[in-house]
Amino acid sequence: MSKTLCAIGFDADDTLWHNERFFKLTQERFTELITPHTDHKNIDNLLLKAEQRNIGHYGFGIKGFVLSMIETALDVTDKRVPGEVIASLIKAGQDMLRHPIDLLPYAEDAVRAAKKLAPVVLITKGDLLDQERKLAQSGLGELFDTIEIVSDKKSHVYSRIYGPFGGVQNGMMIGNSMKSDVIPMIDAGGFGVYVPHEMVWNLEIARTPLGHPRYHELVDLSALSEFLEKEF
Amino acid sequence: MSKTLCAIGFDADDTLWHNERFFKLTQERFTELITPHTDHKNIDNLLLKAEQRNIGHYGFGIKGFVLSMIETALDVTDKRVPGEVIASLIKAGQDMLRHPIDLLPYAEDAVRAAKKLAPVVLITKGDLLDQERKLAQSGLGELFDTIEIVSDKKSHVYSRIYGPFGGVQNGMMIGNSMKSDVIPMIDAGGFGVYVPHEMVWNLEIARTPLGHPRYHELVDLSALSEFLEKEF
Repeated sequence: MSKTLCAIGFDADDTLWHNERFFKLTQERFTELITPHTDHKNIDNLLLKAEQRNIGHYGFGIKGFVLSMIETALDVTDKRVPGEVIASLIKAGQDMLRHPIDLLPYAEDAVRAAKKLAPVVLITKGDLLDQERKLAQSGLGELFDTIEIVSDKKSHVYSRIYGPFGGVQNGMMIGNSMKSDVIPMIDAGGFGVYVPHEMVWNLEIARTPLGHPRYHELVDLSALSEFLEKEF
Repeated sequence: MSKTLCAIGFDADDTLWHNERFFKLTQERFTELITPHTDHKNIDNLLLKAEQRNIGHYGFGIKGFVLSMIETALDVTDKRVPGEVIASLIKAGQDMLRHPIDLLPYAEDAVRAAKKLAPVVLITKGDLLDQERKLAQSGLGELFDTIEIVSDKKSHVYSRIYGPFGGVQNGMMIGNSMKSDVIPMIDAGGFGVYVPHEMVWNLEIARTPLGHPRYHELVDLSALSEFLEKEF
């Protein structure tokens, strides 16, 4: 109990509730649907390349993912993919946008434990409406002092969000993405806490800042309460 | 100069810069592309129905529009639409996401005139990243005290946004959509100022609240400065 935190941020997807597994399931279905119509191998890899190519104008989220799937389906079949397949991809996207919210274990307890110490902020990226729906369904919305749905998580975004609470150097960000939740928060001067999730999207992989004094790693959210008590 | 305003909000698309004309152009291209492959008439109307059906999960913006175009293309051709057409629709969406920003006449002057009286807030809906890009390109970003990109413009959204400035009943919202900018603001207790644009999307049409004491209509943004001086 030596340092003071002005605000504690939580990522949402795959930190508080499952998300990546819906993308993975849809991607498996995509590969199944496309394979009979192409000789291309590594369809997953071609889809990832399309996502990388498109992220600059589509941003993060399900709608951009569906558009990248359709684009890849056209590319690998020389535009001969049957209309039924495209219709299935659109339906798969709409199913994703309706998928139920399964909270991760200890999610609510962790937010309540953090809230005892400082205001809590939800910081998430993706489609605006989809993130709002998930938050509403999660039942956790009321716990948060502020909700920030952002187009990307960069250091300057964290500086802007934590500024009004007392400055990012007294802020903490907790999440499952090293690249989005941890590194840019540490770069901004705050504390980055990594809580691994079994699935990581390839675009979210980054090097662990091992040994950095403001980097912490927890096995899961059940360890947050004790960690906060001990360190802050 | 009898009433005091705590904050003045501006809509962005078709209030400060052109937007609907890019949708209209793409929709014309859509009709051109689809017509040779279907006997359906009123393709525009079928697209509008798809947009209405999908707005609950796609929200507002270009990505949802493209997905609704593809869905309609499949529907009206019994899924026999050629892959080339789908590819053209995806490309048309990407072109829209890159379209240049053309400020409407008097846009900058109007924001500066409002800023003399009260903090100015930009309140817009659509795809998060796309709206951020347009704002950055517009060169108006620095003028605004707050930027709010929201999933939909409802009365409770206006109440939340104007609350910290001193309450929505002392706030004003200026925009080209009767349905999104004017009516819900008046319903929330604030002033709604309608500045018509030559093009209105069918989903944005609503009845004019003629005679309401908090409703005002301007011919264009050049009339804002004088109106504010006279009334506030």
